[in-house]
Amino acid sequence: MSSAKNSDTSSNHIGHIPVDLLYTMNDPKPVRHEILESTEPLTTKDLENWDIDIDRHREPVGWSDKIAFATVKLLRKPTDWFFKKKYIHRAVMLETVAAVPGLVAATVRHLRSLRKLKHDGGWIDHLLHEAENERMHLMTWMAISQPKLWERTLIAVVQGVFYNCFFALYLASPRTAHRMVGYLEEEAIVSYTSFLNEIDNGHIENTNKIPDLAIDYWNLDRNTATLRDVVLAVRADEATHRDTNHHFADRLLFRQEDLRKDAKQVFKGTELSKKTRKMAGLSHAATEKWKE
Amino acid sequence: MSSAKNSDTSSNHIGHIPVDLLYTMNDPKPVRHEILESTEPLTTKDLENWDIDIDRHREPVGWSDKIAFATVKLLRKPTDWFFKKKYIHRAVMLETVAAVPGLVAATVRHLRSLRKLKHDGGWIDHLLHEAENERMHLMTWMAISQPKLWERTLIAVVQGVFYNCFFALYLASPRTAHRMVGYLEEEAIVSYTSFLNEIDNGHIENTNKIPDLAIDYWNLDRNTATLRDVVLAVRADEATHRDTNHHFADRLLFRQEDLRKDAKQVFKGTELSKKTRKMAGLSHAATEKWKE
Ligand SMILES: [Fe+2]
Ligand SMILES: [Fe+2]
Ligand SMILES: [Fe+2]
Ligand SMILES: [Fe+2]
Repeated sequence: MSSAKNSDTSSNHIGHIPVDLLYTMNDPKPVRHEILESTEPLTTKDLENWDIDIDRHREPVGWSDKIAFATVKLLRKPTDWFFKKKYIHRAVMLETVAAVPGLVAATVRHLRSLRKLKHDGGWIDHLLHEAENERMHLMTWMAISQPKLWERTLIAVVQGVFYNCFFALYLASPRTAHRMVGYLEEEAIVSYTSFLNEIDNGHIENTNKIPDLAIDYWNLDRNTATLRDVVLAVRADEATHRDTNHHFADRLLFRQEDLRKDAKQVFKGTELSKKTRKMAGLSHAATEKWKE
Repeated sequence: MSSAKNSDTSSNHIGHIPVDLLYTMNDPKPVRHEILESTEPLTTKDLENWDIDIDRHREPVGWSDKIAFATVKLLRKPTDWFFKKKYIHRAVMLETVAAVPGLVAATVRHLRSLRKLKHDGGWIDHLLHEAENERMHLMTWMAISQPKLWERTLIAVVQGVFYNCFFALYLASPRTAHRMVGYLEEEAIVSYTSFLNEIDNGHIENTNKIPDLAIDYWNLDRNTATLRDVVLAVRADEATHRDTNHHFADRLLFRQEDLRKDAKQVFKGTELSKKTRKMAGLSHAATEKWKE
């Protein structure tokens, strides 16, 4: 309890910070395994070499996929018209919307886990992790470009509408909802690729004024990092979300929701470093811990 | 990308698990610093010696506190009447309700952070951590005693009503909402203390059939752990929630929401082990990372 006593001597108004609160001030955690595994700061070359398959597209099959795909294509239209080539502004709007689905999906699954009195199968953590990652994207773009009042107003309106619509969709069909996020992420990759082209064309200045939070979050190199590196890192995150959400939709289709069993199977008999196993929660008998 | 290739060779139907998904299968993390710091399994004596101050009560001051306190006392009545001394059943109901506020508070703060385009001040992680902890409580009680169909129905109804009411309350007054959770946790401690008494009286059997998930989560001793240890551990968690939520209500009152500055101040000049600093996210310049 020594830390608790220390907190009493601090000079701020809130004298009694519960010690357990101080023990869990975690830094936000990146989503890409390349960043999690990196020991040295990542260079532009590293970022360019990641295998993110920017053209990967999931063919919509069946009405659920088709509704998801058509909705995303429809949502793209007003966005293109509105933002045109203002890519940072577009990114701000995109990220405020992108940070909603993970949270909604986690909410519905958490509540269902409580209601059905059984384990969720390991999704909630990932979904919240995705939402946090999107919030970090937003914080990064915010630090680079401050939107105007009317853009903030638009964001508030879009969020209110999107949160409620997506919640309703997730209750009605989680599969369609995850597929839709998969397609949204495909579009996000297109937008960030255009953003990169604008930088390479010289239409957007490739500034080296990169906020600390971005340097730390993606483990970039403080001495060489530019806007281009940030866009590459963000686009790679979107590729992870794309794959994850299409995968979640597939799992719902196959009715194989439990990630824990598969993780165990995938890792069985493979050569993995101790660090990788630990990151995957596979140290000791981690997946065993999650017995229903 | 070697792990990604490994996943392709797995024999399950879902061949292509995105590798980044496997990298973040985290075990649920306990909330008490004594557990986080423990190297040896915790004995009954350890659990009994924790300073959790079971009688701590926050005097309600002002109408916001009083509404919160009165609501909790009112909610207690039907619960007492309904469950009487069936403490495990009561615990199941309690935990399904208890896992809601953290999630709702995190949702509102996440959405607000996106909308206001500024950092949340470090609350979201804690709130979600609390919700996960409550879900672990529920999973534990579930593994010890399976509720009947009509109890499950009741849980679904209570959850639906409580989620919506608490959401509305949190939008209207986050301070009253956190204070209310503080009082709910005071009552939870009373209930778990009665539960302990029933075990000590011999009215409830002090079984040693403790599910693995509970042993792992609280780092209990497999050879000696009994139901009583689990109740002690759960009660200690509730004490953390009580203190945290009253603290959050105070912060809202003082309009000092940013946890990061205070954490930095509290830790400044104190002697902390490297592990503690790391757990507190204070390795390197962690709190610096969270600049707005
Ligand atoms: Fe994003
Ligand atoms: Fe994304
Ligand atoms: Fe609890
Ligand atoms: Fe609690």
